[in-house]
Amino acid sequence: MSISKEVVQALSSVLTFKDGLVPLHAPVFSGNELAYTKECIDSTFVSSVGKFVDQFEKMLAEYTGSKRAVAVTNGTAALHMALMLAGVKNDDEVIIPGLTFIATANAVAYIGAVPHIVDSEETTLGIDASKLDRHLSEIAEVRSGECFNKQTGRRIAALVPMHVFGIPLDLDGLLALCEKFSIPMVEDAAEAIGSFYKGKHCGRFGKISSLSFNGNKTITTGGGGAVLTDDDKLADLCKHMTTTAKIPHKWEYFHDMVGYNYRMPNINAALGCAQMEKLDDILASKRKLAEAYATAFSTVKGVHFLTEPEGCKSNYWFNTIILEKGMEEERDSVLEATNGASYMTRPLWAAMHRLTMYENCPRTDMSVAESLEKRVINIPSGAGILGV
Amino acid sequence: MSISKEVVQALSSVLTFKDGLVPLHAPVFSGNELAYTKECIDSTFVSSVGKFVDQFEKMLAEYTGSKRAVAVTNGTAALHMALMLAGVKNDDEVIIPGLTFIATANAVAYIGAVPHIVDSEETTLGIDASKLDRHLSEIAEVRSGECFNKQTGRRIAALVPMHVFGIPLDLDGLLALCEKFSIPMVEDAAEAIGSFYKGKHCGRFGKISSLSFNGNKTITTGGGGAVLTDDDKLADLCKHMTTTAKIPHKWEYFHDMVGYNYRMPNINAALGCAQMEKLDDILASKRKLAEAYATAFSTVKGVHFLTEPEGCKSNYWFNTIILEKGMEEERDSVLEATNGASYMTRPLWAAMHRLTMYENCPRTDMSVAESLEKRVINIPSGAGILGV
Ligand SMILES: Cc1ncc(COP(=O)(O)O)c(C=O)c1O
Ligand SMILES: Cc1ncc(COP(=O)(O)O)c(C=O)c1O
Repeated sequence: MSISKEVVQALSSVLTFKDGLVPLHAPVFSGNELAYTKECIDSTFVSSVGKFVDQFEKMLAEYTGSKRAVAVTNGTAALHMALMLAGVKNDDEVIIPGLTFIATANAVAYIGAVPHIVDSEETTLGIDASKLDRHLSEIAEVRSGECFNKQTGRRIAALVPMHVFGIPLDLDGLLALCEKFSIPMVEDAAEAIGSFYKGKHCGRFGKISSLSFNGNKTITTGGGGAVLTDDDKLADLCKHMTTTAKIPHKWEYFHDMVGYNYRMPNINAALGCAQMEKLDDILASKRKLAEAYATAFSTVKGVHFLTEPEGCKSNYWFNTIILEKGMEEERDSVLEATNGASYMTRPLWAAMHRLTMYENCPRTDMSVAESLEKRVINIPSGAGILGV
Repeated sequence: MSISKEVVQALSSVLTFKDGLVPLHAPVFSGNELAYTKECIDSTFVSSVGKFVDQFEKMLAEYTGSKRAVAVTNGTAALHMALMLAGVKNDDEVIIPGLTFIATANAVAYIGAVPHIVDSEETTLGIDASKLDRHLSEIAEVRSGECFNKQTGRRIAALVPMHVFGIPLDLDGLLALCEKFSIPMVEDAAEAIGSFYKGKHCGRFGKISSLSFNGNKTITTGGGGAVLTDDDKLADLCKHMTTTAKIPHKWEYFHDMVGYNYRMPNINAALGCAQMEKLDDILASKRKLAEAYATAFSTVKGVHFLTEPEGCKSNYWFNTIILEKGMEEERDSVLEATNGASYMTRPLWAAMHRLTMYENCPRTDMSVAESLEKRVINIPSGAGILGV
């Protein structure tokens, strides 16, 4: 049997209920979503004032164990703010993985900083710490507590690990590098709510981090994101910057810095509160699905189902299969066959160094990312598939 | 009787129903807001996919007479995009009024451009075209179709009129200046949905313009904004830029420029559609309120109730009283007395040139703005006051 037929068969064996298109990741609203939304509309508090934003932030902080969470318009805004708050400035460099969603690179560019693009490892799809260590040992130097790229002369102001599809990456390895090279860590945990590295929630290892609640994420607020940090000062400043930097006053309108309108509206936070109440159930359902996939794909030769690393817990946001090396040619036919059978699947993003606007950025050898691009496929993953 | 007592009395004569606090501007949800929101939740389409965004854009285009409307996260994002699409670049100057909400200046700063701050006129609170003409005649020169500030050497890349509180400003005067000095006009029509200048909707005079649907605006989407333009190419590019600049493909993730996540989520657009259905009623109710205020304040000496200029239609977003010159000292006691009587009132924004981050920007004499700041007061204006 061809590999594409085998993949379709494995999917069918798990997605037995199938009737029509199985989306990659549809949200599940089985709780108080409508009730809380109605409360916003009835009270007229749909916008910048209202209790759900505070409540959502509290729930996020509690769940992740972060001291503070600041809700914002989306994960892109969250990362933009996290980078600024970590001290990234115009003309700095920021280390990001080549394998990430475009927002990671864009958030760097918004500040006028330059992405420094690095390769990933096959096991977690996240930044390869050993390869990065060798790279930095060659090109970086630490001067008075800051890291500089000797080749470009620019400061390396942050390292942004991204937990691809919710799989926790090698944080120990990267934290050691951050220490060794004096680079602050800013986690792009957009895909990782519900993922834990050695018992601690992803996004709690860097100085500050970002989450996303886009419609395709584990939980959604329509559009939304959050900044996580244990630093009260940074959290307060984040709130200030994301709400136009207005100085509190009973009626005067003074602002003390160039601020943003990145606040999450109350009606979106209302959805978020209802979703947080169901997060454990959503994660349990997604885990069951991942387990079923693991079994189904264990007998498909040439296809590896990606599971969480030892000691870590993945939220299994997007379930992922990886074709063996040598099977790159099969990717498109697997995509055709699965989508043709109404199982939505998709490949990896084009790696950042292959996009015109980032192709001249400093980078490492990108051979692993380039190979993975040709072999990774996401398969249907929503909690609605097995139900909540 | 003291002026503050007289103002409270005039307010009481209009706001006879009063029981508790009368907010400055609460939204009114008397239509399909809940039904449409429920539809989003039931269908799970709350985010970037769904019919309400398209529908809302169509309704906005139809209502304003603009060829195209692109819905975005908020009015700040809309102005940011409008300025970029008008060609504003890093280190350009952009003419903005000193009397505006901070977002006007911030959107300029996001691009790395510099606000060039100009004075307003007492009649509309908008940019004073004659004063600006004198200023530009002194400092500007046109070279190969572009305008330059001779004093700073920078290009003057756009002029951003803002219709303060929905009152249409002197567009004819400003359009003539734009022509004379070769400066593209980008209207910040954030406050002006439902306002018309000589029969044409505000925001349709510039090359491109922005609207806001923040919670305090005439209609709201929780958080939201839109870009208006008659130029299909600009509108398409706006859609592209605000949705991460992804190139359409059945599964590949390629992006061809530094894009933004500024898309309006479907659940917010659902609110917007319901609000648009009620816009005429909302405007009629607000107009009735303004007429009642005009009568009530006509007998209060030293206080002028601001009305629409001849030939124009204001949405009367925020109703406005202006204290006579010489009565600057009374402003704070009027604010105290009215808020103390549970009628929410507020003064103008601090003019842009008085804020630390913009105090060194190029500017005109700002005497009118500074005088108005000490005399303008907004009074309760929501459509809920007289009902919809
Ligand atoms: C890795 C990564 N970073 C950032 C984002 C941006 O989040 P959002 O879409 O909420 O702006 C996303 C999700 O889209 C993402 O997957
Ligand atoms: C003049 C002006 N410009 C821009 C904005 C920004 O709109 P938003 O608050 O939706 O970002 C507003 C409203 O807040 C405004 O009044």
